[in-house]
Amino acid sequence: MTIKAEIITIGDELLIGQVIDTNSAWLGKELNKIGIKVHQITSVTDDKQHILTALHEAQQRAQVVLITGGLGPTKDDITKTTLCEYFNTTLIQNDDVLSDVTAIFAKYNREVTPTNKLQALVPSNCTVIRNTRGTAPAMLFYTANNGIMVSMPGVPYEMKTIMELSVLPLLQQHYTLTPVLHSTLLTHAIGESMLAEMVGTWDDNLPQGMQLAYLPAPSMVKLRLSYYNNDNTIDRVQLLATKTQELLAIVNDHVYGFDEDTIEQLIQTYFIQNKLTLTVAESCSGGAIAQAITALAGCSAYFNGGIVAYSNMLKQTVLGVDEQLIQSHGVVSVEVVEAMAKGALLLGNSNYSIATSGVAGPDGGTAKKPVGTVCVAIACSDGRTYSKQLKLVHDRKINIQLTVQHALHSLYAMAMGKLVTE
Amino acid sequence: MTIKAEIITIGDELLIGQVIDTNSAWLGKELNKIGIKVHQITSVTDDKQHILTALHEAQQRAQVVLITGGLGPTKDDITKTTLCEYFNTTLIQNDDVLSDVTAIFAKYNREVTPTNKLQALVPSNCTVIRNTRGTAPAMLFYTANNGIMVSMPGVPYEMKTIMELSVLPLLQQHYTLTPVLHSTLLTHAIGESMLAEMVGTWDDNLPQGMQLAYLPAPSMVKLRLSYYNNDNTIDRVQLLATKTQELLAIVNDHVYGFDEDTIEQLIQTYFIQNKLTLTVAESCSGGAIAQAITALAGCSAYFNGGIVAYSNMLKQTVLGVDEQLIQSHGVVSVEVVEAMAKGALLLGNSNYSIATSGVAGPDGGTAKKPVGTVCVAIACSDGRTYSKQLKLVHDRKINIQLTVQHALHSLYAMAMGKLVTE
Repeated sequence: MTIKAEIITIGDELLIGQVIDTNSAWLGKELNKIGIKVHQITSVTDDKQHILTALHEAQQRAQVVLITGGLGPTKDDITKTTLCEYFNTTLIQNDDVLSDVTAIFAKYNREVTPTNKLQALVPSNCTVIRNTRGTAPAMLFYTANNGIMVSMPGVPYEMKTIMELSVLPLLQQHYTLTPVLHSTLLTHAIGESMLAEMVGTWDDNLPQGMQLAYLPAPSMVKLRLSYYNNDNTIDRVQLLATKTQELLAIVNDHVYGFDEDTIEQLIQTYFIQNKLTLTVAESCSGGAIAQAITALAGCSAYFNGGIVAYSNMLKQTVLGVDEQLIQSHGVVSVEVVEAMAKGALLLGNSNYSIATSGVAGPDGGTAKKPVGTVCVAIACSDGRTYSKQLKLVHDRKINIQLTVQHALHSLYAMAMGKLVTE
Repeated sequence: MTIKAEIITIGDELLIGQVIDTNSAWLGKELNKIGIKVHQITSVTDDKQHILTALHEAQQRAQVVLITGGLGPTKDDITKTTLCEYFNTTLIQNDDVLSDVTAIFAKYNREVTPTNKLQALVPSNCTVIRNTRGTAPAMLFYTANNGIMVSMPGVPYEMKTIMELSVLPLLQQHYTLTPVLHSTLLTHAIGESMLAEMVGTWDDNLPQGMQLAYLPAPSMVKLRLSYYNNDNTIDRVQLLATKTQELLAIVNDHVYGFDEDTIEQLIQTYFIQNKLTLTVAESCSGGAIAQAITALAGCSAYFNGGIVAYSNMLKQTVLGVDEQLIQSHGVVSVEVVEAMAKGALLLGNSNYSIATSGVAGPDGGTAKKPVGTVCVAIACSDGRTYSKQLKLVHDRKINIQLTVQHALHSLYAMAMGKLVTE
């Protein structure tokens, strides 16, 4: 039997858009991994009646109901009193939570205030799940029809730790679960409709319970095969693998990775395995390439660092770009980014380098180099260089994001020997 | 009368967590600005019956229903056929959309495929809103009780452009709206419960319809006063301003900005107004400070750039940090970040500089310098320096984020003459 879950997020801040809900996507992914399908996500206001209605409706549709938010110590947080009303019970003090809260404040040499002590009050019928990273505990309720309801704080790292240490293991113990299987191909530099043309009618004949989805994101489309069938007489893993290979054979030329791969992780793995090093010289991308690379632990094994050469002065003094070159071709030109890339190779004494220069927008464009004109170069110590002028048509943020993606994909392709260079 | 809206997002990718829903927060904020309150956000699966139920329920609760997602040209996208069933109508071809789609492909010198042509089919009862940034048009439906329903593509920049150009103006024309007023104080380096202690019972006596909310985020808490009252006999703007001043008087020492201010924007405005320049030297923050700064248009007027000195070699060659200093104090030390900051001042010939060095995690910690040990320095060309060793306790991503925030807040405070320096 498939166990369905619903997520309820509580808080006006989500509805008026002051906070983006990242919790639900994380919960959806983790529940999916263990075989629980999220059927609906509902965001409601900090209003008692609204929360009560959402709880009733969710419990009718799903066995597992996960609630986030509204557990702060301040007056606008009403989740706990609303849960008391829902379960027809009252708040009682939990001594474990009180000692946890006291310990947290002791660590910072601060007194526990009366407001903080309120965190130790919980509905009398709940099982407390202690919060190792904050003052608000999670509360678990066993509900009718073998159901489970959990209320957790909305602070993402607190919620994640509570899920990982307590809730996910508990759900796996409580239910007999068959994980949904996913297999994803990551494609670059081809659109959703072109892929659909290539795939054609192949997916008409997928086995019962298997679905293909096209998931577009900036500069990429993910092709995800999902298998929901929990018939134990079938080798599900093998069947999904076979179908994935069939799909790969159709779109192979455009695939750069699989499943949870990211281009940054693929580069890091390849560079470390092959003992290669990298230096960057960023103008229009303004540090975003270095930031993407250094977001991954372990990057120092191949990444030397680089320069954010925002001013022309730094391009000349640190990267040794000739002032004449800038004057004759303009600072946004393939000639200048190639010179920057070569300068970066020397600066970092590295095997590869990336350089960018462009007009990210919204200002700074000219008739000849309008907003969105971005030049990217990759240089290799073996003498190969690649450079390209892009014409991007989005806002500053997405133009920078696409520049980062183009640069990283080009670096990876060139390192793998796939990119045609001069 | 208050107009309520509901948002329905369609797509399995949100429920299994492959995509984070950023659209809803943006919609919530924009609707709020014009006086429409989002009452609920519901994310449903790519399932016809589920979508139909969500549409029915939302329409019963709210006059405005905005739908995103499920409008792609591929088979998993079923929003259009479901809308036909909901309104008991059929798909017809819209010639304007067909010519838009054809024009987009002509721009890239590509043929329109049969799959692309499907984008021109729309429910016969809808008003088409053309999509200037993609192939899927938005569709507007006038519903019972003076209601409006709009189905839009889920691609964020397409949806935003459709909202800004068409839907928001149309809603303002269709309804008589009283905008909800918000006033937000931004605080740094003080916790939610400490603020609550300071504010005390002040908010017990707020006027009818005014609410105070505490919104914590990494390294900050926002204090938001919201005023929902639409009584025209009251000068609402003046009353909210008065209450904001009262709150400011209580928490003034911890407030660095207001409303939509960001620390990056405050720094940029102050530096440009005072003709100051900045250079950065980032080790553990790995480009994240430069990236935050350069995300804002116009930053080149004060930001020279800087170095991502991930390797010790770059710290020495580009920033002139003495090898001896690194050996005697360790690369993660206030001595080394101060030297990096001074090197960055010279490198960029700038008025201010920021330097970071630390162990972001999860590896690389030692007994003396455990994971989370991060040193930050700010230097000024007038000779002042500030440095601090932080002890962060989160994961790599949040440790880097907190380093960026500490560095930017320290820079701003020092530039404003608020920070005690050596």
